[in-house]
Amino acid sequence: MKYGVVAFPSKQLQDLANGYRKRYDPRYSKITPHMTLKEVFEADEREIRQVAEAIRKVARNKKPFELNVSKVSTFAPITNTIYFKVNPNEELSSLHDALNNDDFFGGLPKYSFVPHVTIAQDLTSGEHDDIIGQLKMIGVDHTETIDRFHLLYQLDDGSWTVYETFHLQEDN
Amino acid sequence: MKYGVVAFPSKQLQDLANGYRKRYDPRYSKITPHMTLKEVFEADEREIRQVAEAIRKVARNKKPFELNVSKVSTFAPITNTIYFKVNPNEELSSLHDALNNDDFFGGLPKYSFVPHVTIAQDLTSGEHDDIIGQLKMIGVDHTETIDRFHLLYQLDDGSWTVYETFHLQEDN
Repeated sequence: MKYGVVAFPSKQLQDLANGYRKRYDPRYSKITPHMTLKEVFEADEREIRQVAEAIRKVARNKKPFELNVSKVSTFAPITNTIYFKVNPNEELSSLHDALNNDDFFGGLPKYSFVPHVTIAQDLTSGEHDDIIGQLKMIGVDHTETIDRFHLLYQLDDGSWTVYETFHLQEDN
Repeated sequence: MKYGVVAFPSKQLQDLANGYRKRYDPRYSKITPHMTLKEVFEADEREIRQVAEAIRKVARNKKPFELNVSKVSTFAPITNTIYFKVNPNEELSSLHDALNNDDFFGGLPKYSFVPHVTIAQDLTSGEHDDIIGQLKMIGVDHTETIDRFHLLYQLDDGSWTVYETFHLQEDN
């Protein structure tokens, strides 16, 4: 089974992202707008209980973090993915590192961490070039506090269901 | 903001339900297959923290329950909704009652509790009558244990995002 770890921003930012995703993201209906904290990894149902327990421990020791998006950016020419760029900060990096290291299930990530909320993907280069200028100009400016994140699993049709929520730095 | 409380069955049962929902449920892409435990209610962001705390207390005192589906049923002629009927049991009823009463946010439910996982809805009577016989004949037969449930909120486009997971009868 495929698992992943994400944080969902507030309804306000999700609604804003969905305004773009509806038109520009073919995976729009498979998951609500999110920031990925740990890329897809494989685990069976026994393993995932251990993974969840390990994530729970991480969550207890990590602080809520500020999610601040202040610009629209693109991964082109690597992939034609456009996103709200999340400005990194110590709490967010520390949480990401704790979920992605040699000791942790799924191992090291393939790419360096560029925190983001995707608003367009799988575009042709023509589509990408058509819209990127305008999206950058409209921009985005939003700050909120994230106090929880979620372990999800993927169904056969590609959609994602929640397995568990983790509260950052909560004692219970 | 609109909130609701659901239990997601295992991936296996969700994949089975989605095989039907993909064709017969226009809300297929808005939420993964689920059993509703508390119907949609309104709350603001301050209230929802109190609601979540109240649900957390309920979860601590309620046992994991068996989810057993053994037949396909329909709400027609009231609505043309077809579903996997979940056989009631004491643990499930007790959990439902604790989430739906005068003392609890959202108040009393409008209908008596018929636990189910929807596989088709918003059908015309013609569509309903065309498929109900075959779906009943194919049937369903599945049992699993549910040890968690989730508080969700709805985005402007109708899709649902998770707010929090609750573990049944867990001490931490």
